[in-house]
Order: sequence, then C-alpha cells, then structure tokens
Amino acid sequence: MSERLTAERRRAALAALPGWQDAEDRDAISKVFTFADFNAAFGFMSRVALVAEKHDHHPEWFNVYRTVSVTLSTHDAGGVTERDIALATAMEAIAAATGLKA
Amino acid sequence: MSERLTAERRRAALAALPGWQDAEDRDAISKVFTFADFNAAFGFMSRVALVAEKHDHHPEWFNVYRTVSVTLSTHDAGGVTERDIALATAMEAIAAATGLKA
Repeated sequence: MSERLTAERRRAALAALPGWQDAEDRDAISKVFTFADFNAAFGFMSRVALVAEKHDHHPEWFNVYRTVSVTLSTHDAGGVTERDIALATAMEAIAAATGLKA
Repeated sequence: MSERLTAERRRAALAALPGWQDAEDRDAISKVFTFADFNAAFGFMSRVALVAEKHDHHPEWFNVYRTVSVTLSTHDAGGVTERDIALATAMEAIAAATGLKA
C-alpha cells in the first residue's frame, strides 16, 4: 500500500479522478476545489480532516475563502501511492456531497 | 475599521503579536504556527474558521500536518487593517488554548 504507483496504475487512477493532475514540481497529485463559499470550503476540509486522521494520511492544502488547493503525496514513499489515490477518491465523494460551485 | 493601518499603528500592533511579521512580497502579515500534531493543528483551524466566518473576514492559510502558515490582509483595503489585527489576536488566543508544540 505504500509503494509508489507504476506509471500505468497512476495514469489509470488519475483518469478516474476528474480535475486531478500531476503536480508541476514534485512527485505528487493536485487539484483545486472551488466551493460556493467559505462555509462549504471549510465544511469540505472538516470532513476530509476526519478521513485523513482516521487513515493517518494527511493532505497539504491551501485555503483562501471558497477555494481549497490540495496536494497529495506519500512522504515515506517519496511519491504517489495508493494511499493518495484513496484520499483523493474520498475527497471527490465529500466534495460532491458538499456542493461545488456551479 | 477597514482602512489600512498607519505605519505607527502597524508597528505597535505587530509588537503585541509574537511571531507575526510583515509578509515578504505583499501588504499582509503572516505567522507559521506549529502544533503538537494534526489533531491540534486542525482543531486550531476549526476554531479560527468559526471566528472568521462570524466576522466575515477570512485567512489565507496552508496546512501540512501539524503546521499552519497564515497570511492576513484585507482585500477591500489592499492591505493590513484593524480587521487583520483582530483576527491575528483571536488566533493567538486560540493557539494558546490549543497547545502549541513545546
């Protein structure tokens, strides 16, 4: 679970995660989420925080008002692993339930 | 309340906010908070989020595990106002209650 993904697996995983892409300057994946307002953005962050803590795998994220910029990587593995794909997948489900900006 | 601070007022306000400093590349103030763990860091963020929402004045912040990097500025005023000083002061009180890393 904590080995870096193969190129093939990573491509397949990203294809199933709309809006996610390879980070520009490091071995990581990233996405910018835009919500209706701060309430929705921080609600998303709160739900994700519980998931992250449960699995002891945490995002790097930057929030300004209704925008949340997320970068995921697995420090111990030095790159993207299944743990990042699992967290990104959870974020997608939470964002969909939170209500992204139309 | 939403006019940019005078240089004198800003100096006095920062002197009373340990660890806060002028941002490097823009008219803003910033601080890096380091907590015991993610639980404490996100607990801090959650309490600050409620204060921010109440006063409709929100931070820019970046969280990685137990670190929270905050930048405050008042967009409408194009710089630092009393609203930023008030939010920074609230963050200090919440951080002190949350438990910073020793």
